[in-house]
Amino acid sequence: MTDVVELAERLIACPSVTPASGPVFDALEAMLAPLGFEVDRFIAGAGDGDDAVENLLAIRRGPAGSRHLAFAGHLDVVPPGEGWASAPFAPERRPGPGGEVLYGRGAVDMKGAIAAMVAAAAEVPAAAGTLSFVITGDEEGPAVHGTRALIERIRARGEVPDLCLVGEPTSVHRLGDTIKIGRRGSVNIFLEVAGTQGHVAYPHLADNPIPKLVAMLAELDALVLDEGTEWFQPSNLEATDITVGNPAHNVIPARASARISIRFNALHTGAELAKRVDAIARRHGGSAQAIVSGEAFLTPPGDFSALIADAIAAETGIIAELSTTGGTSDARFLKHLCPVIECGLVNATMHKCDEAVAVEDLAVLARIYTRVANAVFKDVGEMVA
Amino acid sequence: MTDVVELAERLIACPSVTPASGPVFDALEAMLAPLGFEVDRFIAGAGDGDDAVENLLAIRRGPAGSRHLAFAGHLDVVPPGEGWASAPFAPERRPGPGGEVLYGRGAVDMKGAIAAMVAAAAEVPAAAGTLSFVITGDEEGPAVHGTRALIERIRARGEVPDLCLVGEPTSVHRLGDTIKIGRRGSVNIFLEVAGTQGHVAYPHLADNPIPKLVAMLAELDALVLDEGTEWFQPSNLEATDITVGNPAHNVIPARASARISIRFNALHTGAELAKRVDAIARRHGGSAQAIVSGEAFLTPPGDFSALIADAIAAETGIIAELSTTGGTSDARFLKHLCPVIECGLVNATMHKCDEAVAVEDLAVLARIYTRVANAVFKDVGEMVA
Ligand SMILES: [Zn+2]
Ligand SMILES: [Zn+2]
Repeated sequence: MTDVVELAERLIACPSVTPASGPVFDALEAMLAPLGFEVDRFIAGAGDGDDAVENLLAIRRGPAGSRHLAFAGHLDVVPPGEGWASAPFAPERRPGPGGEVLYGRGAVDMKGAIAAMVAAAAEVPAAAGTLSFVITGDEEGPAVHGTRALIERIRARGEVPDLCLVGEPTSVHRLGDTIKIGRRGSVNIFLEVAGTQGHVAYPHLADNPIPKLVAMLAELDALVLDEGTEWFQPSNLEATDITVGNPAHNVIPARASARISIRFNALHTGAELAKRVDAIARRHGGSAQAIVSGEAFLTPPGDFSALIADAIAAETGIIAELSTTGGTSDARFLKHLCPVIECGLVNATMHKCDEAVAVEDLAVLARIYTRVANAVFKDVGEMVA
Repeated sequence: MTDVVELAERLIACPSVTPASGPVFDALEAMLAPLGFEVDRFIAGAGDGDDAVENLLAIRRGPAGSRHLAFAGHLDVVPPGEGWASAPFAPERRPGPGGEVLYGRGAVDMKGAIAAMVAAAAEVPAAAGTLSFVITGDEEGPAVHGTRALIERIRARGEVPDLCLVGEPTSVHRLGDTIKIGRRGSVNIFLEVAGTQGHVAYPHLADNPIPKLVAMLAELDALVLDEGTEWFQPSNLEATDITVGNPAHNVIPARASARISIRFNALHTGAELAKRVDAIARRHGGSAQAIVSGEAFLTPPGDFSALIADAIAAETGIIAELSTTGGTSDARFLKHLCPVIECGLVNATMHKCDEAVAVEDLAVLARIYTRVANAVFKDVGEMVA
């Protein structure tokens, strides 16, 4: 089998703080082209005043009518920060209590997983089915010109996959213990109350916006959005900021604002929650502006999740938990193409100093991905309804 | 009678943005010394890291056993700001619809009233009783080294007056329509809630301080402190600021704070209110720090207020309203010496651009003050219990 650790090291060695472009994509292209992939790299966002983002879509077509499985992920990483024992972009293997460990920014999130996908692609017979790589250079940043641009590209080219596996680090304690079959959606809502400024000694000549904002936030805090579902925890609303900005002790301020964040399950949409909050805001004399950063998604447990769980069980003996917890990921966009599930390395060190992956896990994950691809191509069952 | 307008112009012509010292006090001393006043000027606050404040205590003693009336006020003014039709410290008389008007910063607050006090002192026979001037250069600023220092000086010198008349601009529409027999107290309270920062996707690992602060503010907003008294409107609590300062949309903040201002009548003390708010803050997991800027005071209606109202009625035909509304004044300190009442010019332009006084009002106020002094010295009744 291909040396997956060496592949991971080659990717980590290319600094790629978000948004990423250039060398790290050159490295990935150099791995995929020899395996028979047609590689399509493009820049999105340049000229929009945003950072230019590089994206890569690689396809190796199987026989006509065969299944199409997409491996999806990102090559950008969060900034390394301070305090590393070795240079963050100089991959280094060091012995650990449970075996050799590979250190470097992106080791688990998610260059290690992309290396495992490449190693799997080398194992899966090209004739078994269509395999593609959907890889962005901006998942950790604004994510405006990343996976969303890739989805447009895929649609424009008519290469929509049947199933998509995202390599985010979903494992918690041991490789394969958790996969994500969904994620909660996220909406930030900006609340605003306008009043009339005045002197505290003459409150009848002023209109204090603070009590209105306070009553609004108290009502929002008491909201029970739902009790959760079979696959989701209850939706949750948090007030994250309040701003008045009035330095004068004897002045009733002219306006007061606040920000709330709702993480919501598949019982809601961002637009519906925004409307509901706006009605409450208006009842208290204010207004609300919402920014939906992602809708909830759920790939209900079925053939696809079973096939991934089987692959994990075969390689590790572990029964994977099907989870929908945690933050958002690019799966919130990919769900518009086809059923999507996330399965990757242990996330204990992601985004942290001394990010590291167990060398053994890289090889096991490559075998899990290989099993998944082979099973998808063999199994023409119900999973792609 | 002394030309009160000319006296007012001499005071206005000395720029004296708070804290005031030097020339404006020289001008006042030059008016009082010829009238037989012993003038004691002193600087307070220098060396404390605060601004140095000049204060003036002038006394003209009457016969042993005679009454002692103090005229109190301030020579500092608020900054002139922009947009004046004439230079703010170059007094200018211009015709107005109701007669001549004198323009200049301090015209009504309160160099005009001090000029009227000087003119009154010139009219009142020196042998009638003891007259004093208690004049600070810091009423509009922090007021830490102003009237408070004067009160210490008065006590140290054993020159405590029997009654005190403050020249703040208490009139609302016409000269003499309102005098202040009391003022509400004022306390600012700083509320703070500490929580535990965390990611909005994992609220169980965080402790959001905002809902606690919101519940605290909702309870405070619903408080009914009292229904008012015969002479005071109800005490009032206003939230004046909230600060969280959390720029990260996906982060639950570590702390939240707010500021409230209570204007309270003589049914309360600042300390009692601070304690009550602190108990509410603690019940919601927070804490409260109070700064009392002044206690309420009331000089209950009686001989002193009647004598002032009689003087106003005799000169203007107006029945003065006895009021306790509005902001704080240095009467909150002077009340510790003796009964104190405030009576002065029309406050419509105080602290504003083009501050101005009707020239005629200056002469009428001088005659009112003269009548008050003569009545105090003649009347040895119950007013100084
Ligand atoms: Zn990631
Ligand atoms: Zn004043």
